Amino acid sequence: MTQVLLTLNAGSSSLKFAVFDRETLSETAQISGKFTGIGGAPAFTARDETGAPLDNAELETINADADHEQLIARLFDWLEQHLGQMPLEAVGHRVVHGGRNFSVPTFINDEILQELELLSPLAPLHQPHNLAAIRAVAKWRPGLPQIACFDTSFHRTQSRTAQLFALPRALSDEGVVRYGFHGLSYDYIAGVLPQYLGDCAGGRVIVAHLGNGASMCAMHDRKSVATSMGFTALDGLMMGRRCGTLDPGVVLYLMQAKGMDATEIENLLYRKSGLLGVSGVSNNMQVLQQSDDPHASEAIDLYCFRAASILAGLVPSIGGLDALVFTAGIGENSALVRKNICDRLAWLGLELDSAENARDATCISQPQSLVKVLVLPTNEEAVVAKACQNLLP
Amino acid sequence: MTQVLLTLNAGSSSLKFAVFDRETLSETAQISGKFTGIGGAPAFTARDETGAPLDNAELETINADADHEQLIARLFDWLEQHLGQMPLEAVGHRVVHGGRNFSVPTFINDEILQELELLSPLAPLHQPHNLAAIRAVAKWRPGLPQIACFDTSFHRTQSRTAQLFALPRALSDEGVVRYGFHGLSYDYIAGVLPQYLGDCAGGRVIVAHLGNGASMCAMHDRKSVATSMGFTALDGLMMGRRCGTLDPGVVLYLMQAKGMDATEIENLLYRKSGLLGVSGVSNNMQVLQQSDDPHASEAIDLYCFRAASILAGLVPSIGGLDALVFTAGIGENSALVRKNICDRLAWLGLELDSAENARDATCISQPQSLVKVLVLPTNEEAVVAKACQNLLP
Repeated sequence: MTQVLLTLNAGSSSLKFAVFDRETLSETAQISGKFTGIGGAPAFTARDETGAPLDNAELETINADADHEQLIARLFDWLEQHLGQMPLEAVGHRVVHGGRNFSVPTFINDEILQELELLSPLAPLHQPHNLAAIRAVAKWRPGLPQIACFDTSFHRTQSRTAQLFALPRALSDEGVVRYGFHGLSYDYIAGVLPQYLGDCAGGRVIVAHLGNGASMCAMHDRKSVATSMGFTALDGLMMGRRCGTLDPGVVLYLMQAKGMDATEIENLLYRKSGLLGVSGVSNNMQVLQQSDDPHASEAIDLYCFRAASILAGLVPSIGGLDALVFTAGIGENSALVRKNICDRLAWLGLELDSAENARDATCISQPQSLVKVLVLPTNEEAVVAKACQNLLP
Repeated sequence: MTQVLLTLNAGSSSLKFAVFDRETLSETAQISGKFTGIGGAPAFTARDETGAPLDNAELETINADADHEQLIARLFDWLEQHLGQMPLEAVGHRVVHGGRNFSVPTFINDEILQELELLSPLAPLHQPHNLAAIRAVAKWRPGLPQIACFDTSFHRTQSRTAQLFALPRALSDEGVVRYGFHGLSYDYIAGVLPQYLGDCAGGRVIVAHLGNGASMCAMHDRKSVATSMGFTALDGLMMGRRCGTLDPGVVLYLMQAKGMDATEIENLLYRKSGLLGVSGVSNNMQVLQQSDDPHASEAIDLYCFRAASILAGLVPSIGGLDALVFTAGIGENSALVRKNICDRLAWLGLELDSAENARDATCISQPQSLVKVLVLPTNEEAVVAKACQNLLP
């Protein structure tokens, strides 16, 4: 009888899941799906390994105030109906923050859960939801092994210099350092790089994870050397709703001259800035690309201007650039964004193949380009499933 | 009888002055000097155009609580004794913030002074002192023409994209944008570039102003295209006591998790961070270079790591790099810092000449280097004096 692994990725308003077969451990989940609109108008969708939608009749109505605990109970019921007799062996969680201590996937117990809770102030928008999902699974399936996979782990190979802020040592010592995020995505891309780059995979590579959240990672030998996100997932690239890197003097100005408190500033910088704030139209790149509003194209242009700048700023850490990989929603699907960014990097010897770029091909650089440019889909769930497989007896 | 111009550069704890001959308008001031330690133990030093110290007997004792107004009164007395009958024609001030409206040197009147006061919340550490000096001169020498030269002006040639933060439009519209600073220094360097670079002066140049404050400016056609400082002089490079670019999420953490208020955070980021905070030893690069403390070398290394990253991040805005200019205290005097930064930029085709660098030569790159590297002294006072000369009848 096939044993399966469940992966969970719990955010503030969404809960993604995927089911993997332990025997084949195919990268393609047997079943995957998500709850969206949590806290507002929750909805459930799921599909099988071919991408065909699965029956969600029994989850058509969900209480508007259902929390992660209740949703996970309903998910377990739904899974039992669809998985039949396939025994669930473990649940693997994406946990955004592992701090300095957790640099590998880890079995969760009460002690570790408490330690992870101490990190919640460092990732207030993500960590509490990740941990709520862990607690819910423990409640409904006590004894089921749970494994945490951290978005910060991949970056722990970085030098101390790359992880330091120019802040007083006392703050660095207590953990106010650059952690970096999107590590599961980078881990996945690092794993498949040799298939696409051969020996060059061990060279100087920058991966641009451009999704709803967005960051970049400079790799050498497929290990993280530097990354654009810092202490929090607010830093670095301009994102859908997040401002990215910002003069800290602006935050002081918001406090001193505009009298805003921490909650208001957090709301402004995490939810009202980025593509949404600059365009005044949408946080969705696709919507912006189709908009006639000049503010929409201004937002796209700023997004690409800053992406090119941050990308170039990572190059000294790896001493040059052999390959650039675009991944995640925008990276995989927006030829316009890729072209705008690559055009700003021609001085690196990067020559884009516009036709291949337009059709979202895997390799979008010209053969003679000094920098090879790839478009690769990421798969964070597969990384979590593989980590579970490796840890389980 | 020779007419003279006085330039003033008033900071929180220092007041620098220089006296220029209107007829020759030599870049070398006839007399220059400064009050230091204002608010603590004020001291006065001055020198003539050869660099020889001038008599400061009558300023040997200064009240500890003397403010800019009182110090300027004493400066006028001292100047009269030393200038003899040379009539003072105008006072030119370095004013840090000209906002969006002041992009050229401007005669100051009451109306303009009021407008400049509105910009004080945007540069709380500098603007009030600049304006205090203007008011003091108006009090002691009513009717004497005063001219403001703005550190932000040089950057007003930048594209809108280069000046935007990824913040809601309403904030950008009210002036929360990237202004950039050290414009008088960049203006001076841009002016002398053709002497050193010939036609290449109009190419793609980055000027690294590494002083107590520090920033970089990417120029094309000797005009500012992008710069590392933003809305305030806190942004960009790591500095003596300032953190430079910082994940805005760190500021939120200081507010939310550590309960710090705006004054405490301002104090932390402006006065206790940077080289001082990381080393725990000193904010002075010379002291750090001579220190055996491993934290001192760590601070220098972080300084250079970040400088190289920010420099590289400016390159896309000008599409490559033809020349790099180091200037200001650290830029002109620290061969170690220049070497550390340049070594991180070898992938740009930059080849440093270590021997020339070690002796602080004007050109410190190898002949075949794709990027020419210069060390040029800056002279902000000369820019202010020249602006006065141009404006006066």
